[in-house]
Amino acid sequence: MNIKPLANRVVIEVLEQKETKVGGIIMPDSAKEKPQEGKIVAVGIGSRADNGDIIPMEVNVGDIVLFSKYAGNEIKVDGNEYLVMKETDILAIVK
Amino acid sequence: MNIKPLANRVVIEVLEQKETKVGGIIMPDSAKEKPQEGKIVAVGIGSRADNGDIIPMEVNVGDIVLFSKYAGNEIKVDGNEYLVMKETDILAIVK
Amino acid sequence: MNIKPLANRVVIEVLEQKETKVGGIIMPDSAKEKPQEGKIVAVGIGSRADNGDIIPMEVNVGDIVLFSKYAGNEIKVDGNEYLVMKETDILAIVK
Amino acid sequence: MNIKPLANRVVIEVLEQKETKVGGIIMPDSAKEKPQEGKIVAVGIGSRADNGDIIPMEVNVGDIVLFSKYAGNEIKVDGNEYLVMKETDILAIVK
Amino acid sequence: MNIKPLANRVVIEVLEQKETKVGGIIMPDSAKEKPQEGKIVAVGIGSRADNGDIIPMEVNVGDIVLFSKYAGNEIKVDGNEYLVMKETDILAIVK
Amino acid sequence: MNIKPLANRVVIEVLEQKETKVGGIIMPDSAKEKPQEGKIVAVGIGSRADNGDIIPMEVNVGDIVLFSKYAGNEIKVDGNEYLVMKETDILAIVK
Amino acid sequence: MNIKPLANRVVIEVLEQKETKVGGIIMPDSAKEKPQEGKIVAVGIGSRADNGDIIPMEVNVGDIVLFSKYAGNEIKVDGNEYLVMKETDILAIVK
Repeated sequence: MNIKPLANRVVIEVLEQKETKVGGIIMPDSAKEKPQEGKIVAVGIGSRADNGDIIPMEVNVGDIVLFSKYAGNEIKVDGNEYLVMKETDILAIVK
Repeated sequence: MNIKPLANRVVIEVLEQKETKVGGIIMPDSAKEKPQEGKIVAVGIGSRADNGDIIPMEVNVGDIVLFSKYAGNEIKVDGNEYLVMKETDILAIVK
Repeated sequence: MNIKPLANRVVIEVLEQKETKVGGIIMPDSAKEKPQEGKIVAVGIGSRADNGDIIPMEVNVGDIVLFSKYAGNEIKVDGNEYLVMKETDILAIVK
Repeated sequence: MNIKPLANRVVIEVLEQKETKVGGIIMPDSAKEKPQEGKIVAVGIGSRADNGDIIPMEVNVGDIVLFSKYAGNEIKVDGNEYLVMKETDILAIVK
Repeated sequence: MNIKPLANRVVIEVLEQKETKVGGIIMPDSAKEKPQEGKIVAVGIGSRADNGDIIPMEVNVGDIVLFSKYAGNEIKVDGNEYLVMKETDILAIVK
Repeated sequence: MNIKPLANRVVIEVLEQKETKVGGIIMPDSAKEKPQEGKIVAVGIGSRADNGDIIPMEVNVGDIVLFSKYAGNEIKVDGNEYLVMKETDILAIVK
Repeated sequence: MNIKPLANRVVIEVLEQKETKVGGIIMPDSAKEKPQEGKIVAVGIGSRADNGDIIPMEVNVGDIVLFSKYAGNEIKVDGNEYLVMKETDILAIVK
């Protein structure tokens, strides 16, 4: 891929949004944000610890991840659409 | 389980909400948030200290925990509903 | 007790609220919050220093403490009502 | 005294408020807060540095101090009224 | 170039804005910010770690980068227009 | 002087306000705050670095300093009026 | 010069404002702040790292710098007008 995200950022290809709604009976007052699923296509070198050391990324290219629907910036590379966001906006890796 | 939360996040299966209301006589002006109970089904590797070291998690898979009703993001994995939240949103382990 | 608070949290049994009002003559424009008294029934392992070390708790099980009336989350364990709050919300130990 | 404040908190007996108003001619647009005077009756062990070390208190029991009128929480111990506040809310020691 | 940005700042020559819109069908509720493309023409020495060490820059002069449309300050040097922004406002390097 | 400011605070005797207005022609849209001049009459021991070490003060008793008009708390000691403020509110020493 | 700025502050003599406007065609929705140019006439000793060490200044007396139009406090020394601001408010050195 022709793009290298900076610091602890990743580039994500958004996948079809999974059904994540929790039933009205169990959580009737729920106002929680529903996350989105995507595939990591590029990763940065990681963020910096307070002493300047690089903290390695937990995610790798190819990982399927869940992230907040409102996270990230949209970009278009070689005609394809992606999101650039920080690793801290990723909730979990779907194995 | 097919999901791995990042950093100090956990995946929680929400349990039936316990009765946590304190009587009106003792705390008539109470406006405090009532926590919810759940079971830990997956844990991240932990957050990072300022020097980059990983701080181990206090909770383990199988722990029954109390957490704020408004904490976390709802996700659906293999047809089941869960919450993803940070360990710092968990109040206590019910032993 | 069957509950273990996380990090620097404590579980408190609320005691009868002490009279803490300061007379109108000395502080007529006082709008200060009145604290509440309680007994510590469980303590966490402590918070983390920036290098990841655990900072030991100052309070112990059995201590009678003063805390802000609005601090903490209400919980119910084995039919009894308690508050879960951080040690930083505790003002003082009444000896 | 039967009370031990936590961390970098102190217990203060409020003294008669000193006249601290600056004349209208010198500072006509002054909207600055007027501090209050009190006597330290109990001190905590101190706050924690980022590495977890305790930072010793600058004030001692018996010191007469100036502090913001709006600082602290009112408490009543053995029938007497006091304020509990953090050392960082104290402006100066009156020698 | 006759300008040296301070700390972790860079000077960027703005390029023609790329088409980065994601289709309405996939993200109908999208309100995400569209980034802009530019060429790095000068870089600072880097920001400081907490211990005072300089953290080297990830970007170099000549790199084509993506950054938020609202980032940076406009400047004019030798009749040409540029943006000065912090490296943390840069999302990715387009290779 | 009978007052000892805490941490990185100083006690300042306010001097006659200098004329600091910049002409309307050069900065017509200026809305910048005009500083005030004073003489340091007491200094604290200094603030604490993150490791707990004391950072020595830059100002000394007798220094004439410039500070923001809105900085500090007014106090009255032995019938005289002063300001107590943090060293970080001082802009410069007038030599 | 008879003034010594504290910490990481500098004293700046404002120069004639350069034309920095970017044409309406290239950035029609631009709402970015236009910086101002000035000459450094005095520099402080630098800010403090978290361990208390002094971080040396990047700018020197005589440097021509760009800074935000709204940065700094206006002062008047020996009849001349200057700005006092922190080095972090300076965008770049014009060589």
